[in-house]
Amino acid sequence: MKVLVMNGPNLGALGSREPDVYGTTTLEDIERMVRERAADLEVDVAFVQSNHEGELIDAIHAARGVYDAMVFNPGAFTHYSYALRDAVSSVELPVVEVHLSNIAAREGFRRESVIAPACLGQVSGFGPHSYVLGLEATVAAVAGR
Amino acid sequence: MKVLVMNGPNLGALGSREPDVYGTTTLEDIERMVRERAADLEVDVAFVQSNHEGELIDAIHAARGVYDAMVFNPGAFTHYSYALRDAVSSVELPVVEVHLSNIAAREGFRRESVIAPACLGQVSGFGPHSYVLGLEATVAAVAGR
Amino acid sequence: MKVLVMNGPNLGALGSREPDVYGTTTLEDIERMVRERAADLEVDVAFVQSNHEGELIDAIHAARGVYDAMVFNPGAFTHYSYALRDAVSSVELPVVEVHLSNIAAREGFRRESVIAPACLGQVSGFGPHSYVLGLEATVAAVAGR
Amino acid sequence: MKVLVMNGPNLGALGSREPDVYGTTTLEDIERMVRERAADLEVDVAFVQSNHEGELIDAIHAARGVYDAMVFNPGAFTHYSYALRDAVSSVELPVVEVHLSNIAAREGFRRESVIAPACLGQVSGFGPHSYVLGLEATVAAVAGR
Amino acid sequence: MKVLVMNGPNLGALGSREPDVYGTTTLEDIERMVRERAADLEVDVAFVQSNHEGELIDAIHAARGVYDAMVFNPGAFTHYSYALRDAVSSVELPVVEVHLSNIAAREGFRRESVIAPACLGQVSGFGPHSYVLGLEATVAAVAGR
Amino acid sequence: MKVLVMNGPNLGALGSREPDVYGTTTLEDIERMVRERAADLEVDVAFVQSNHEGELIDAIHAARGVYDAMVFNPGAFTHYSYALRDAVSSVELPVVEVHLSNIAAREGFRRESVIAPACLGQVSGFGPHSYVLGLEATVAAVAGR
Amino acid sequence: MKVLVMNGPNLGALGSREPDVYGTTTLEDIERMVRERAADLEVDVAFVQSNHEGELIDAIHAARGVYDAMVFNPGAFTHYSYALRDAVSSVELPVVEVHLSNIAAREGFRRESVIAPACLGQVSGFGPHSYVLGLEATVAAVAGR
Amino acid sequence: MKVLVMNGPNLGALGSREPDVYGTTTLEDIERMVRERAADLEVDVAFVQSNHEGELIDAIHAARGVYDAMVFNPGAFTHYSYALRDAVSSVELPVVEVHLSNIAAREGFRRESVIAPACLGQVSGFGPHSYVLGLEATVAAVAGR
Amino acid sequence: MKVLVMNGPNLGALGSREPDVYGTTTLEDIERMVRERAADLEVDVAFVQSNHEGELIDAIHAARGVYDAMVFNPGAFTHYSYALRDAVSSVELPVVEVHLSNIAAREGFRRESVIAPACLGQVSGFGPHSYVLGLEATVAAVAGR
Amino acid sequence: MKVLVMNGPNLGALGSREPDVYGTTTLEDIERMVRERAADLEVDVAFVQSNHEGELIDAIHAARGVYDAMVFNPGAFTHYSYALRDAVSSVELPVVEVHLSNIAAREGFRRESVIAPACLGQVSGFGPHSYVLGLEATVAAVAGR
Amino acid sequence: MKVLVMNGPNLGALGSREPDVYGTTTLEDIERMVRERAADLEVDVAFVQSNHEGELIDAIHAARGVYDAMVFNPGAFTHYSYALRDAVSSVELPVVEVHLSNIAAREGFRRESVIAPACLGQVSGFGPHSYVLGLEATVAAVAGR
Amino acid sequence: MKVLVMNGPNLGALGSREPDVYGTTTLEDIERMVRERAADLEVDVAFVQSNHEGELIDAIHAARGVYDAMVFNPGAFTHYSYALRDAVSSVELPVVEVHLSNIAAREGFRRESVIAPACLGQVSGFGPHSYVLGLEATVAAVAGR
Repeated sequence: MKVLVMNGPNLGALGSREPDVYGTTTLEDIERMVRERAADLEVDVAFVQSNHEGELIDAIHAARGVYDAMVFNPGAFTHYSYALRDAVSSVELPVVEVHLSNIAAREGFRRESVIAPACLGQVSGFGPHSYVLGLEATVAAVAGR
Repeated sequence: MKVLVMNGPNLGALGSREPDVYGTTTLEDIERMVRERAADLEVDVAFVQSNHEGELIDAIHAARGVYDAMVFNPGAFTHYSYALRDAVSSVELPVVEVHLSNIAAREGFRRESVIAPACLGQVSGFGPHSYVLGLEATVAAVAGR
Repeated sequence: MKVLVMNGPNLGALGSREPDVYGTTTLEDIERMVRERAADLEVDVAFVQSNHEGELIDAIHAARGVYDAMVFNPGAFTHYSYALRDAVSSVELPVVEVHLSNIAAREGFRRESVIAPACLGQVSGFGPHSYVLGLEATVAAVAGR
Repeated sequence: MKVLVMNGPNLGALGSREPDVYGTTTLEDIERMVRERAADLEVDVAFVQSNHEGELIDAIHAARGVYDAMVFNPGAFTHYSYALRDAVSSVELPVVEVHLSNIAAREGFRRESVIAPACLGQVSGFGPHSYVLGLEATVAAVAGR
Repeated sequence: MKVLVMNGPNLGALGSREPDVYGTTTLEDIERMVRERAADLEVDVAFVQSNHEGELIDAIHAARGVYDAMVFNPGAFTHYSYALRDAVSSVELPVVEVHLSNIAAREGFRRESVIAPACLGQVSGFGPHSYVLGLEATVAAVAGR
Repeated sequence: MKVLVMNGPNLGALGSREPDVYGTTTLEDIERMVRERAADLEVDVAFVQSNHEGELIDAIHAARGVYDAMVFNPGAFTHYSYALRDAVSSVELPVVEVHLSNIAAREGFRRESVIAPACLGQVSGFGPHSYVLGLEATVAAVAGR
Repeated sequence: MKVLVMNGPNLGALGSREPDVYGTTTLEDIERMVRERAADLEVDVAFVQSNHEGELIDAIHAARGVYDAMVFNPGAFTHYSYALRDAVSSVELPVVEVHLSNIAAREGFRRESVIAPACLGQVSGFGPHSYVLGLEATVAAVAGR
Repeated sequence: MKVLVMNGPNLGALGSREPDVYGTTTLEDIERMVRERAADLEVDVAFVQSNHEGELIDAIHAARGVYDAMVFNPGAFTHYSYALRDAVSSVELPVVEVHLSNIAAREGFRRESVIAPACLGQVSGFGPHSYVLGLEATVAAVAGR
Repeated sequence: MKVLVMNGPNLGALGSREPDVYGTTTLEDIERMVRERAADLEVDVAFVQSNHEGELIDAIHAARGVYDAMVFNPGAFTHYSYALRDAVSSVELPVVEVHLSNIAAREGFRRESVIAPACLGQVSGFGPHSYVLGLEATVAAVAGR
Repeated sequence: MKVLVMNGPNLGALGSREPDVYGTTTLEDIERMVRERAADLEVDVAFVQSNHEGELIDAIHAARGVYDAMVFNPGAFTHYSYALRDAVSSVELPVVEVHLSNIAAREGFRRESVIAPACLGQVSGFGPHSYVLGLEATVAAVAGR
Repeated sequence: MKVLVMNGPNLGALGSREPDVYGTTTLEDIERMVRERAADLEVDVAFVQSNHEGELIDAIHAARGVYDAMVFNPGAFTHYSYALRDAVSSVELPVVEVHLSNIAAREGFRRESVIAPACLGQVSGFGPHSYVLGLEATVAAVAGR
Repeated sequence: MKVLVMNGPNLGALGSREPDVYGTTTLEDIERMVRERAADLEVDVAFVQSNHEGELIDAIHAARGVYDAMVFNPGAFTHYSYALRDAVSSVELPVVEVHLSNIAAREGFRRESVIAPACLGQVSGFGPHSYVLGLEATVAAVAGR
């Protein structure tokens, strides 16, 4: 099984970016944690991070036929990118939305995800562990098909 | 480590209730799945289900000093029970909100959780597996304290 | 045919409660009127009244396999109890919502029923006669299945 | 006792119009059902159907002194015709609003009736039977004056 | 100078319609009052009343080249007839909107006039005298061109 | 009969203030027009203009027992001064709200008058002539008491 | 193939009505343009214009079995006539909504069409040419069935 | 004089629950303070606390004929329990709503009390002293009847 | 201890102003009641009433260093004077907001206080007794510092 | 005449993307259809598709002086890209917005186009034929300049 | 060149008022800073501060013919004083709105300025330096006329 | 000191783009003006302009450790790019938002900046001079650290 882990804007700056909100773990640390859990689950994982909405859309379309599922943290695109929502709908792979912080407890605009209705489900609020849980959810969903 | 798994209104009818939305798995099936995963994680789990908001509030207060964390599917109370939100805030234990269905993809009123801002995080959309992931999130959160 | 007539909060105080809005007929008077009409229609009727949302949810689930239909005046729960709505949806029996007063002509918050979308239909504004009409609607609906 | 049964726009096309929503019964079938029940109740009934808001308003004013009450399905005028509401208010006869479908379970704009606050009460969701129940409610209301 | 005085739905029933809101003066009384004042002002007046939005629109278009101005009480059409607004805009005659009651002090929906932005001005709240004032305003506006 | 004509903020600058919206007539011109019409009607008129909300409130209270009615252009206070509304309600004299421009055809915030519900009626859109009509309305209302 | 071209309120006044918004072309000019294009396409066209909502509803029902499709400019009814929407839904012929002006660039209330959800599609903003394009769209849609 | 002091959900946990918001005083401390002041005022006081909306409704109905007034802190039910509002309306005893914290200065949802319109008045923001003031207000109100 | 009791617009007219809402007690009566209770509590009280927002702001700033606390009925300024809110925030004295009527049970606009978030707490609905309770709350708050 | 046909995000995936909504025609098929019609009309057409908002903005600016007009399907950018709206406004070429589906009949967020106010007009709901009609509209608009 | 620097309510208390929001600089300090920069720019400056909306309106009208421009910090009047907005519109001098704090990052009600649409531009968020920048903007604007 | 001046979408077209809104000055002209003022202030300035949201986000992250502050005109991204807001928050450099036009006086959607809460302050409405003032504000802010 192959899973693509995608990260949206500003997530490349994790660790230094607003550590009181997002913690000091870097994106590399998260990738390492995901890779370890993927090894346990005998899953191949690949990673994409981009600050460009268009590159993320391109990556989703390119995933078709290459990956079995995706774990996706859309960052701030979560709240307005209907284009990413359409990309997720169109690719017909299971996509799990993950967030580091508990977006329900933050500013008003962060409480709605316009992408979530096109996803299989969401995991949010557990810091880097959200990705590991997202991977497990993804693997279980693909296995259960 | 001891974890309480709480279920709100109508969840006792799982399996027969609107199976196209909620599946055919019963609450007993879910409890068995959670118990198995808890055994792997060496965690004690207990279960409460009630259709009574007051009983759930009582149970949350009673959990103090007895359990280390909670996994909570508030059912439809998710969308209006500010009393449950206050109970979760007041108990000062980590609480993970879980949902069987992807509430972001359903009717408008199901998209807001008034309880979520008082929780550690949410897991939604993975059917019974949401509970297993919620348990893992809870255990990791308690361990990481 | 067996029909359960359910009454929500404060309806036990009918007759004394705000008589300019709800009239001087008591709940016992209404039950007698319903029983008489039920006898004409050769229908068994039973009655439940509770100020507890949880007891009403329990009663709805317990009705499955016992009653053929329900007549339900949810009182003020009409306007916020998504838990009762889910209970009505899950029980898969025809449920007719009734109201003594014309809720469309009262305060703004009373104009929306969050339970109605899960019901077969509504009858409102005819005082105690709303229940008799609700019973007839219920009986016709069950007969027409 | 004389009762006028009024039908608003598009109801003349019943039976062929969107049968999955409104059923295959024609307006003539409904009138026959109402007439039978009216005979039982020893009530004279007359029928008006118009796609013209102005004709319906004229009919309401003309009803004064001729009919004792009205049963009214305003069709889509339900949701915006404040002119019909004022006509109902001004005629000072009991008017019962009826709907074939459960308007509370349909599109958002169908959930509000701007005419209902001027009516005695509503019956909705029971298909053609809504008219029969509406007639009974009307008769009881006139009798109870 | 020729002025057309137009009255919308239900105004033909004035005097009997909700006298606590609209008074006991009939439309004929109002027309007599307006005619008297018109005679003082040496203005010809004509009157139209219709419960049909379409007839009012037709009358507005027919007024072009025949009348110099209009006094218009659109009744409940005030609050939703964008078609009447467009008719008023298109006829390019001064139109003064009048209301018997003080619409600002009534139900919420009566506080907005969708026709007013196409009119020269409004006079409301003075009972039948609103028409006399409206006529004077109209005459002054035409004279001032 | 004695009538007080009150003008709110910025109306002292009439004639020079945004002439494309408000015209070139000064407040003195308007007072002269009103005085002439008052002489015809055998009414004493007095004038107050203030940019101070508090002075206008004081003037309203001071009018009790001195004047029989008021004509009031509250200027921009129209849209937010609940204190002026309460003053008008408390003085128990007939007050007619007037506006130079057609406020219904201007920016959104100018379409609501928070003072109007406490007034007898409104006249708007006729430039300086609004005051003359307002005076006539006031006189008729006092006479009709 | 037979196509009915329907025009709503005030469109009979085209050419003289607000020429800066709607241009100087008359409805007759438009009908001539449509007829010419219809001749090219070997389509029979007929025309209806009415300021009466009820006549338009009648015409839609009468079109069943007579015409294969409709081109419809509902004028201001676009924004509130749910009755016309229901008529379009009920007739089960392809209906294409057309507008002379770009309604998306005008006043807020003109931006929503309550009729559009019942139509096949819309063409707006091209002046009289909108009708020609609407005819072509209609013909292609009927041909493609 | 007999006064019932009622406390809603989570107030039993006072002292330990979010002490930065609600202070360290326990509900027992508050009851002692109220009892002392009641003794001064020669009033009998009784106390109810429940996390169950239904029990509070039952208690309100049971208070009729037993108590002369109530002091009520509905906790989070303040913001959504229309059923409690109806109970307060129906019991026809003076009820004073009290809150420990200044609810006007907290989260948006805490700023509206759906129960307040049925109460005599409110006291909020003075910590435990709110209850004492509420008792005094209640006693004065009963005495003043 | 010195306490300033401030009254906003129209409160000088108490007793004559809308007695069905505000009672027949005058502001002088209220001041006498407050003075008596202040004497019991050994507190000096002073009184300010103004219809001018600016004078109230000036008085708040002048209170610094002179008074220990304030009791404030802002009248209709309650609902829009952000300037008074900022004055209360800036003076850093405890301020208790009081209202004669139960503002929660009145018109929509009276339900929100923009000043309350800057106050210590509120007392409303007890007529003149609201001031006495407000004074007690103020004294207790200062004493408890 | 040279016309640029631009396609926004996810339209490169047409044919495979959600075929029940968008059909099985690919973007290449659409381009062929447009090219054929363009040949009839003696117009040169070029095509751009991008998932990157920035590339579309660049393409619009680059079109100045090269193309005479544009046909633009902005995909999901339709609903939030004010940057594309500004680009369309700034380029001063006629731009026609086209959509495959009838966006008025889909989810709420798809009903508003933030780009449409800057366009000449819209064509939506005719599948691939929307592009052909859009091209014709564009050509007629340029010819008519 | 002569420039009037106006300050609205509570700004006289700067330095002592909420120093965590507004800093410890007094209004006198700010005036000194502005005077120094004005000397560099060879501009005469005068200062007005008032807690009275009416005095500020009077000052704006009095500025006509005396000053060439204004720098204006309306304090909390920013958010509701339509009367000040009209004064600014009517005086026809360039007015620059300034704020000490970044109002976009504060409470919701502080995010809208009802005065800004009548101003030339805004400067906010730079503490006392906002005034210096506002002066420079004003001078440049007058010079550039 | 080194300052980065960033410009968002469509600002490269300045001078030709909608000159009645944005003037005829080009971006090169603005850069020259900023460079001159920077030389006076002994500040190094660099410039970035992009129509790509992703490139602007990349540029903000790359600025860390290279520049001391930023002046940022986000163009239309101002109104929806939460991703740019997060980038500004994460880079921890002072950022000043500037706009050529007075966005408070334009269309509704332009009145909210979703980026402003993450900035130090804003300068808007002074045309190209907004950049010069923004630079001065930036320099003063860095110097004042």
